[in-house]
Amino acid sequence: MSRHVLIVHAHPEPTSLTRQMADAAEQALREDGHTVSRSDLHAMGWKAVVDADDFPSRVDPERLSVVAESGHGYATGQLTEDVAAEHRKLLAADLVILQFPLWWFGMPAILKGWIDRVWSYGLAYGHQGAGNRHRYGEGGLSGRRALVSITTGGPASDYSPRGINGELDELLFPITHGMLFYPGMSVLRSQAVFGTSRFDAAQVEAAKHAWRERLAGIFEESPIAYRAQNGGDYPDHHVLADTLAPGQHGLRVHQR
Amino acid sequence: MSRHVLIVHAHPEPTSLTRQMADAAEQALREDGHTVSRSDLHAMGWKAVVDADDFPSRVDPERLSVVAESGHGYATGQLTEDVAAEHRKLLAADLVILQFPLWWFGMPAILKGWIDRVWSYGLAYGHQGAGNRHRYGEGGLSGRRALVSITTGGPASDYSPRGINGELDELLFPITHGMLFYPGMSVLRSQAVFGTSRFDAAQVEAAKHAWRERLAGIFEESPIAYRAQNGGDYPDHHVLADTLAPGQHGLRVHQR
Repeated sequence: MSRHVLIVHAHPEPTSLTRQMADAAEQALREDGHTVSRSDLHAMGWKAVVDADDFPSRVDPERLSVVAESGHGYATGQLTEDVAAEHRKLLAADLVILQFPLWWFGMPAILKGWIDRVWSYGLAYGHQGAGNRHRYGEGGLSGRRALVSITTGGPASDYSPRGINGELDELLFPITHGMLFYPGMSVLRSQAVFGTSRFDAAQVEAAKHAWRERLAGIFEESPIAYRAQNGGDYPDHHVLADTLAPGQHGLRVHQR
Repeated sequence: MSRHVLIVHAHPEPTSLTRQMADAAEQALREDGHTVSRSDLHAMGWKAVVDADDFPSRVDPERLSVVAESGHGYATGQLTEDVAAEHRKLLAADLVILQFPLWWFGMPAILKGWIDRVWSYGLAYGHQGAGNRHRYGEGGLSGRRALVSITTGGPASDYSPRGINGELDELLFPITHGMLFYPGMSVLRSQAVFGTSRFDAAQVEAAKHAWRERLAGIFEESPIAYRAQNGGDYPDHHVLADTLAPGQHGLRVHQR
């Protein structure tokens, strides 16, 4: 079955490993009969910063509420064309891949700015105008798969379960759970290539090969078992039930 | 004793609560005899995106390595003037406050771009040209205090130890540990104002009052007890010793 994939990638160097990973993914997916669109944020000159220019038609021309203007702009089709184009690409996709170098344990600013601007109220939050009622497992982007694919300069040991940088899955939780699962996407385990600051050509090829191999089965993978807000695990929609992961706390309690 | 404080803040609305918290902090600190500088990123028109324009004098004009060019530019004083000005402000500060609205569980892109561009190799990482040898508790920004001060639209329960968004201190770990402790700063507990989407004027005043009260003792607070890389807890400088927090894993093992 042919699916459609959106690859969003962010690196200022056009020959970067980030770009090579995006190219490898597109090639592998096309060879498997899928279709692919790309958002190469640097090549697009993506505007990273949310400001008043994002909302040409305002509810309140005096004081800027990002939530209110995002909701108004989305509902009335009056957001800027660059954001609207990304909405169309997102909504056409069965799988969304975010490919980036981990900079200071998060996304490069240009990609964070893609989230900040494209994750509009009414689409990625405030689903059906109902505030926080529909989130984490349902929402405007439900029915889609998503995953984070990163490269790091530092070694895998630094990101291991007891590694000094912090365990990778917990470092990425604000992205995987907070940005991708929140609006309803099924999130697959993150792809990581470590230690790239000392990579030779063979290591680059090995990383691309492993990525292509994984992508061959990407639509059969089971997603990360994050708990849905409205599946019963959060009786008040805010706090995990006492009976689940009893006595525990922190990011990991939100995974079954 | 008079100290110098740098407040970096990011919100597109000039009358935002973010701006009001920054103003309240400056006023309180000045009344206590301290000096204050500000980086109001939107007012400055801060360039958020790392790209080739950041490195007017290149080691390699063909292929852009951010690490290599950042190190070269910093060592030779050839970074752009906007970045150099922030370096001077940082190095003059005894305390650095990052004030921002939590957007998608992290910094707004403009602030992430301040980190991406200002945290240069040779200053914030690669201390003394020794790769990862000096980090987490020592480094180019040691001797300074730092803290994150955030506002959230959503309620405190969502960020509580078992709250659905994830426990706040763990969501902020990539910032507090990864961006602030990494280059050597002593990190104070984060300041958080929750539920701002429904705030009335009295709640705004209460939030500013609590912030001013805290700042009165800010130079006497004990920092978060993150483990130093070179204090013995990481025998190989990468992975926590088996004898510490035995059998545990994840972000919290890096705090004593």
